[in-house]
Parts: sequence; C-alpha cells; structure tokens
Amino acid sequence: MAAGRPYEGFFDINDVHEYLRIYESHVRSLSGGDEKQVHRTLLQYGRTKGIIHDLIGRNLSTDEGIHVDPESIVVTVGCQEALFLTLRTLRRDDRDALIAPMPCYVGATGAAALADMRVLPVAEHTAGIDLEDLERVVKEAKADGLRPRACYVVADFANPSGASLDIDTREALIRLAEKHDFLVLEDNPYGLFRALDSESTPTLKALDGDRRRVVYLGSYAKTGLPGARIGFAVADQRTASADGRTGLLADQLAKVKSMLTVNTSPIAQAVIGGKLLAHRHSLRSANARETELYQGNLRHALNELARHFPDDSRPEVTWNTPAGGFFVVLTVPFAVDDELLMHSARRHQVLWTPLHHFYGDGRPRRQLRLSLSYLSPDEITVGINRLADFIREQCDVQSLQKGIS
Amino acid sequence: MAAGRPYEGFFDINDVHEYLRIYESHVRSLSGGDEKQVHRTLLQYGRTKGIIHDLIGRNLSTDEGIHVDPESIVVTVGCQEALFLTLRTLRRDDRDALIAPMPCYVGATGAAALADMRVLPVAEHTAGIDLEDLERVVKEAKADGLRPRACYVVADFANPSGASLDIDTREALIRLAEKHDFLVLEDNPYGLFRALDSESTPTLKALDGDRRRVVYLGSYAKTGLPGARIGFAVADQRTASADGRTGLLADQLAKVKSMLTVNTSPIAQAVIGGKLLAHRHSLRSANARETELYQGNLRHALNELARHFPDDSRPEVTWNTPAGGFFVVLTVPFAVDDELLMHSARRHQVLWTPLHHFYGDGRPRRQLRLSLSYLSPDEITVGINRLADFIREQCDVQSLQKGIS
Repeated sequence: MAAGRPYEGFFDINDVHEYLRIYESHVRSLSGGDEKQVHRTLLQYGRTKGIIHDLIGRNLSTDEGIHVDPESIVVTVGCQEALFLTLRTLRRDDRDALIAPMPCYVGATGAAALADMRVLPVAEHTAGIDLEDLERVVKEAKADGLRPRACYVVADFANPSGASLDIDTREALIRLAEKHDFLVLEDNPYGLFRALDSESTPTLKALDGDRRRVVYLGSYAKTGLPGARIGFAVADQRTASADGRTGLLADQLAKVKSMLTVNTSPIAQAVIGGKLLAHRHSLRSANARETELYQGNLRHALNELARHFPDDSRPEVTWNTPAGGFFVVLTVPFAVDDELLMHSARRHQVLWTPLHHFYGDGRPRRQLRLSLSYLSPDEITVGINRLADFIREQCDVQSLQKGIS
Repeated sequence: MAAGRPYEGFFDINDVHEYLRIYESHVRSLSGGDEKQVHRTLLQYGRTKGIIHDLIGRNLSTDEGIHVDPESIVVTVGCQEALFLTLRTLRRDDRDALIAPMPCYVGATGAAALADMRVLPVAEHTAGIDLEDLERVVKEAKADGLRPRACYVVADFANPSGASLDIDTREALIRLAEKHDFLVLEDNPYGLFRALDSESTPTLKALDGDRRRVVYLGSYAKTGLPGARIGFAVADQRTASADGRTGLLADQLAKVKSMLTVNTSPIAQAVIGGKLLAHRHSLRSANARETELYQGNLRHALNELARHFPDDSRPEVTWNTPAGGFFVVLTVPFAVDDELLMHSARRHQVLWTPLHHFYGDGRPRRQLRLSLSYLSPDEITVGINRLADFIREQCDVQSLQKGIS
C-alpha cells in the first residue's frame, strides 16, 4: 500500500496503436491529406510547446470549465516537468521562494530543491491549507527580504493528506495571491476521480478567470496513460522575463524547456491526443470504470479500518475520510520511521509510506499513508489485516517498554 | 540552410507500429508470455533509468566498441536531458564549472546556464579542441578557486565547426582529464554518419576503458527517430554524492531525473527498442541510406561552394571541409549578425546561422554555418546560389562604404 500508481487492470496495448491512428487521421484531415505534414508532425522534432495543445484546451474546457488560449499551454514530460519548468522560470536568485502546505507531495519539494528554490512551509488543517498561517509566512518572508513567488497546492484530494479546499478557501487563496503578488500552482492529478454522482467544486484555475493568478499543472498519467508521460502547464500570465521583455509565461517555460528536453515526444503526445479525440475531449466519462474502482477501494479501505479499529478501541488508531484521491492517512500511537517500515515489510509483508517523507525534515511522525489506487479490494483486505497486526504488535512493544521503564 | 534536423524523407509512420510490436514481443518472450508484465512494462510508470538499457548496451557494443554494464545507462528524453542531468548532478555550488571548446553547440551552454554552472571557454583549432589552451584554462580556474568538473566535447564532426579529434588528441584529452581530475562529456550525435567506406576513430568512451573518465551522451534523434525523443547517458563512474555516499554516477543522475521527468516514456523507448531489435542492435547499416544522403549533401555543398567561389576569386570566401556531420562553416569578408540574417531571409530567401550564436558573447564573427542535413541536393544548389548572391551583395556594400569613408 505504498505505490501511488494508477490501477493497470484496464490498460490495453491495442489502445496505443488505436490512439496513434486516430491522432494520425486527425492531423491528416487538418492538413488536407498532406502525408509529408502527417509524418513530419508525428516523427520529426517539433514545436517546443507541443502539438496537442488545442486538444488539451478543449479537454480543460469540457471537463474542468477552464477556458484558456491554447498558446498558453506547454505540453511536458509528465506533470513533473511542468512543475520544474515553472519553478526554474520563477526562480531568479536565492531570494525567490515557494510556499508549500505541509505535508506536501515530494515531487513539489524535490523540484524546488532541483531549481535551487527555498521552500516556505505552511500549515495544513483538515480543510486544506491554513490561510492565516499562509499570510503570516508570506509577511515574514517579505520582511526577511525573500520573494514568495508561488504557492503550490493540490486543491482536490491532496497527496498525502486527502484534504480538499472548499470554494470559499479557493477564492480566498486567489485573493491572497493577488494581495501579496504571488502565483498559485494548482496541481490536479486526482480531481477527475471524484464520485460520479458528486458535485464538483470548480478548480482554482476555473475561478481565476482574468485575474491570471493560477498556473494549472495537469497530468494525463492517471487519466490518460502513465506510459505516455504526458503532462502540461497552463501559464497564461503576462510577465517580464529576465531580459526585461514582457511576454506569456508559457513562452518563458518553453525557453527553459528547449534547454531541458527540447520538446515532448510527439509520438507520446499522439497517444494522449488520440485518446482525447476518441472520447470527444472528455476524460471524465472515459474514466468511469477507474473512478468507480478508486471510489470503491477508498470505501472498502475505510470499512476495513473501522472493522479492525472500532470506535473507542485500544490501541487508538484514527484516520481521515477523504472523498476521493488515492490515499488514506492513519494516525497511530507510536512514531513511524523507515526502520519500522522495513520491519513491517519483512515481518508483516505490508508496505506503506511514513508521513515524515512528506515533511522533508526527517523527523518521524505518528502517521503513515496508505495508497489504494493500485490494488484490488481483496488485496486491500489482506493489506489492512497485515497492517492491523503490525500496529497491534507495535503498541504491545510500546506498552512493554513503558512497563520496563 | 539553418535547421539541423535530420532528413525526413525516409520516415514512415508504419515503422512506429512495427517497432512497438517488435518490442512488445521481445518483452513477452523475456517474461515467458506474462501479458500483465507486457502491459505493465509498456504502459505503466516505469524504472527511472529506463527499460531499453540492455538494448542500448548491445547497440553501443556493436556500433561503437563501447562495452559497459547496462546499469550505468540512463535512458533520457533526448540527449538534451542527459546533458542537463549530468551538469546538474556535477554542479554542487558556484565553484563548479564546465569547460567547453568554442564555438560550442548551444544546447551544451544552454544546459549549463539552466544548471547555474559557469562555462570556461577553450579555444578550438581545425583539429578540434586546443589541449594547451585547455590545460591553461584548467590551471587558471583552479588558481581562482573554481572546480572544473567536466569538459564537453563532440569528438566526431562537431557542431558547428565540423572538427573531429584524431586518436592522439582523444588519448591526450583523457590523460589530461585524469591528471586534473575532471570528466569528459562526449556528445556523439553525428559519428554514425561517417562515410561508409571510412575507418572510424574510436570514441573517447571506447578508449576510456577502466579509467572511467568519460561520460558518453547518446542520441537516437538522428539515428533512430526524432519523434521518440530518446537519448541516454552512460555514467559508469563511481563517485561520492552530496550526502557523502559512494555510488554509480548513473544512479545519481536517476535521482535528479526522478524530480525532473520521473521516467522516460516507455512507449517512446519501445519505439527505439523495437528499431534496435529489428536491426540486431546495429544502427550503422540501418542508416546506410541516411549516411549516403548526408555524405552526398556534404560533397555537393562543397562542390557548389567551389563553383561559386573558385580559388583566388574575389570576394574571398573560404570554408572548412569536414569529413562528416550536418554542417559547413563559411568565412566571409564581413561581420555576420542577426540583422544580416533577416536581410538574407527577406531579400535572398535563404537562411543560415551566424556563428556568434555558438560563442554566446553576442559579438558578431565573420563566419556563418550552413546546415545540409534536411535538404535535397537540388535545394542545396538553389540555397548556395542564393547565398552566393547575398555574399557578393554584402561585399559590394562593403566596398561602397569603404569608398565613401
């Protein structure tokens, strides 16, 4: 229950060939049957910002109510490259900093480290980012001569906390970003997998409108196909570059990308482009099976946890109840470190992730993350059974140690 | 005559499907027919260092006489990512520097800028890098408290100069790297396209052996398929990482990659893997048509230049005569800047690249680069005819200006 990979039971290699052919036909028809243009688009070096930006634009409009000029979209090698490009572009010198709610996805803090960008931690509560703490951190940072350039946030089903921001918090975050002149980097890998019958809260980017405070970081790794490694950034801000010229932030990202990966494989883009075309630019219905599975896994895990650790039972184990996403966070009566994880793997044959990995300070917490996306319900039953044995054993060890001391 | 793209006349989209199927069968047979393993390998997130490292190892052994443990290979998003990963890993602080012969491929100096790594320019002469100047630069840099960590070099048909290093220079460069404790980053995008009947000079990496001074940066953009965006680094050095632990440099690159692009698209890797399998791990014979075309274009361009500018003619125009690669460099009697390029494009309908782009100091040189890879012989005839008109016009303008002054 450690890996955050998408469920692979529905993958089909024939889809790759099919999507490639659909995209190929699309280019052929757009170019009026120019075969040279077709093979140049798919097989040659290509546009730095990518070739499926139009399709991504329509996808965002259909599934997320985000309406942007496709010129502001940069197609990247997974969302991770979009994140690095954005941070590396925003980072001019040591004063530039990234605000990040803790616990935080390690890819975000890792990309910041790679871009030599300082991270300013902000508290998270059950309803997501703590805006009072955020404002305090921003003011203190500015007083120290720092420039908080952006705040990273997963507004829907954060990794690892599972927290989602309500609409008022989303609005307030954008207003804070305006007030203190920073950008919001909205990473949204799990939003599409909300319950099929649930109302969606608009993404920050959909709320943003002409304020252009939000850079949207998208991924097709979970909703498209992980093996294509396609993500993107929507960066429709007009900002001054290092040389003083004003232009689209997307074009600045592209300039960095040209020295990083040159362009994203057009063959890989064509696979995702074909999938978008095959489903009329919407991945919401295309992922109905996946959504049902992820929602089912989450419910099943919560039920199993409740069965093993009923209310008022000892040991006292609690957990959050996210409405979506891939993860559940458990709070246990002992500190969880990597040594315990090794023990759990060896003795109990169950893997999970100690929560201190998401704080980056190496200080063990009394929390751990379970990942449910990759498993079948039966595997979850077995996994949580093993986990419960492990937790009870650790509580016994602790009582024993207390008795001795 | 500006774009350095490979010739696309031999591209075929059906090859993509074919290569994918060949690689798929390969995985199926390796896994004993395990379909889950096949689709996990191709479609799921995957190994950070890549999945076709074994095939790349055999390719290097077959075509380049380079024999390395596949574990030391990192499959990247084009050679550009391999370059950035290597520089970002070597760069610990502001004292770390990259040595680069000038003129230099802009992707190398651009990646260094992105990694915040200082570049120490070294002179190039007709036989390639000037080793005396290199040693002087290294000593001066060390005296200034800098750490020259690596020297970037294209040993076969450099871009833009077309220069190749003879075997003695290659050996001497590796010995210098040992003496002064720096790495050699050997970028080799054009070496495979040497004349079919020519003797090859061993790559630096083949000469390196157990000394492990050379990091080899490979690309399948020209020899495989540009649209797959597959490159790689061979980094078999054992070095200490930032945390003091000693390990394979390839594993340190992978750690950086995990925060940059996570992994290279396995679908894109499968396309190149399939091509390697289809040609028994050798791309030399698979590129016989391309090699003949590039060699023919080069000869044709040199003949056309000689026709327009015979010996002892006025204006005095000279050029180098590389034995391979995509480029020819012309020396003309006037300084060449971007404004002249615009004029040449508008008035004479011919594009080329001012050589000062490859020096990064913005100071116009009396040189320009012609790229021949993308064109047919007829297009080269027309292009050089237009270029000759442009050059004569500029010489007339210059005479006129001298007359006036």
